[in-house]
Amino acid sequence: MDANLELIASNKSFGGWHKRYRHRSTANGCDMVFAIYLPPAAETGPVPVLYWLSGLTCTDENFMQKAGAQRVAAELGIAIVAPDTSPRGEDVPDDPEGAYDFGLGAGFYVNATQAPYNRHYHMYDYVTKELPALVEAHFPVTDRRAISGHSMGGHGALICAFRNPGRYVSVSAFSPICAPMDCPWGQKALGRYLGDNREAWAQWDASRLIGEAGERLPLLVDQGSEDGFLEEQLLTHRLVDAAKAADHPATIRMQAGYDHSYYFIASFIEDHLRHHGAALLD
Amino acid sequence: MDANLELIASNKSFGGWHKRYRHRSTANGCDMVFAIYLPPAAETGPVPVLYWLSGLTCTDENFMQKAGAQRVAAELGIAIVAPDTSPRGEDVPDDPEGAYDFGLGAGFYVNATQAPYNRHYHMYDYVTKELPALVEAHFPVTDRRAISGHSMGGHGALICAFRNPGRYVSVSAFSPICAPMDCPWGQKALGRYLGDNREAWAQWDASRLIGEAGERLPLLVDQGSEDGFLEEQLLTHRLVDAAKAADHPATIRMQAGYDHSYYFIASFIEDHLRHHGAALLD
Repeated sequence: MDANLELIASNKSFGGWHKRYRHRSTANGCDMVFAIYLPPAAETGPVPVLYWLSGLTCTDENFMQKAGAQRVAAELGIAIVAPDTSPRGEDVPDDPEGAYDFGLGAGFYVNATQAPYNRHYHMYDYVTKELPALVEAHFPVTDRRAISGHSMGGHGALICAFRNPGRYVSVSAFSPICAPMDCPWGQKALGRYLGDNREAWAQWDASRLIGEAGERLPLLVDQGSEDGFLEEQLLTHRLVDAAKAADHPATIRMQAGYDHSYYFIASFIEDHLRHHGAALLD
Repeated sequence: MDANLELIASNKSFGGWHKRYRHRSTANGCDMVFAIYLPPAAETGPVPVLYWLSGLTCTDENFMQKAGAQRVAAELGIAIVAPDTSPRGEDVPDDPEGAYDFGLGAGFYVNATQAPYNRHYHMYDYVTKELPALVEAHFPVTDRRAISGHSMGGHGALICAFRNPGRYVSVSAFSPICAPMDCPWGQKALGRYLGDNREAWAQWDASRLIGEAGERLPLLVDQGSEDGFLEEQLLTHRLVDAAKAADHPATIRMQAGYDHSYYFIASFIEDHLRHHGAALLD
């Protein structure tokens, strides 16, 4: 395997393998860690890939440990790739106050243009280009890709799909930050990574982008009705309205009683995997 | 609800509820936290309970977050109760060197007889008597109980079942410490909790107890062949031999390629839940 791929963990899981790798990222200018789940089918031929983008404070580990996705991925024959949520390292600038919602663990899947963040924070290029190229060069996978994520990563999945017609065959999200231009998390992150010009922000806002999406991948979104971030940060109604206005095919489900946790994600991950499987295995 | 049950977390999960409670434990002389998963069926009538005992360093959270058990528990209509792995609190003595394999997070499911541990370390009484009594008094559950666990908790599940004919209808284990008298983890813990008399240790050693078990509950054990603790600490062959010698019904499976992690547990938890379901719902 490539000298730029250092295996750091390996666990058999549902007949396949969960593996973690460290590699040097050109996009982010630092070492990055990602996890890949290879289903049993990958032993006999290449399989398509679901990219999972995690939320604030997460690493590659949260989804792989808590979502329970491997069972259905093994059944369907889908690989899953889970990147980290920001560049990392001692020379990577963090939030000056060490807040959880900006900087380390909070790359927001954009390409930063503002110093000091523009040197390392290129998570958009990393997850849409560099990481897929690396994965497709070194693992038994095809170039059929789906993308999903949670919260900040749900926002990431939506913008990556809307901005890249033809790159993904399927998209979904759990509890996405639907209108980052208009919520505190998004305003803080976009303002610091991109500067004060709100026009630049609009290129990273799913509720704006959906009207300009170059293709109409059917969208599946699950949102917990008791999610404590729903009203102030996630603004799901904005995506509902934008999808309607754009006549974009979208199933946006309000799941009664569920919160923002992985207990919620685990409860509905099978639906998302089958949603992606229908497109990936078509 | 009882003033001695403080709800500290609540998450909807697969149509049911994951909840965490703090309560004052008489057995351990300290506050204890446990988790309970109540399946949707518990809303319409009492359900049986699987007790899950975790391994070294764990709390009530590891199993609930990582095993993916709620899906099948919801389907079958089984509650799951996950206690902590030791007494906790500032006045609870830990390993003098703070080691991970003794003291806090490492109660070994025994009743300690040696000072200073004998004041708080009564995890056996806690998990077999105090906690079930509390759960059965305050939650919509029946008195049909099963027990399972991992590593130190697999040892715990086996000894709790073997020592208590009639208390459980079903038992299983993942990667149990099968002969604690003869492995470093067990010798350290039993020596410090129980003193030097090895006859006292034998009452807490599954490979000794299985020959004296007052009933022959069919035993299901899964063990990973690539588990780094297998040869020195777990000694699965000792349980295989003891079950054979005692003519105890046992399915002890060596799972090729799997390790000691929750990726292993998640891969086979459904088999264990159905094993317990067959007895609990009989």
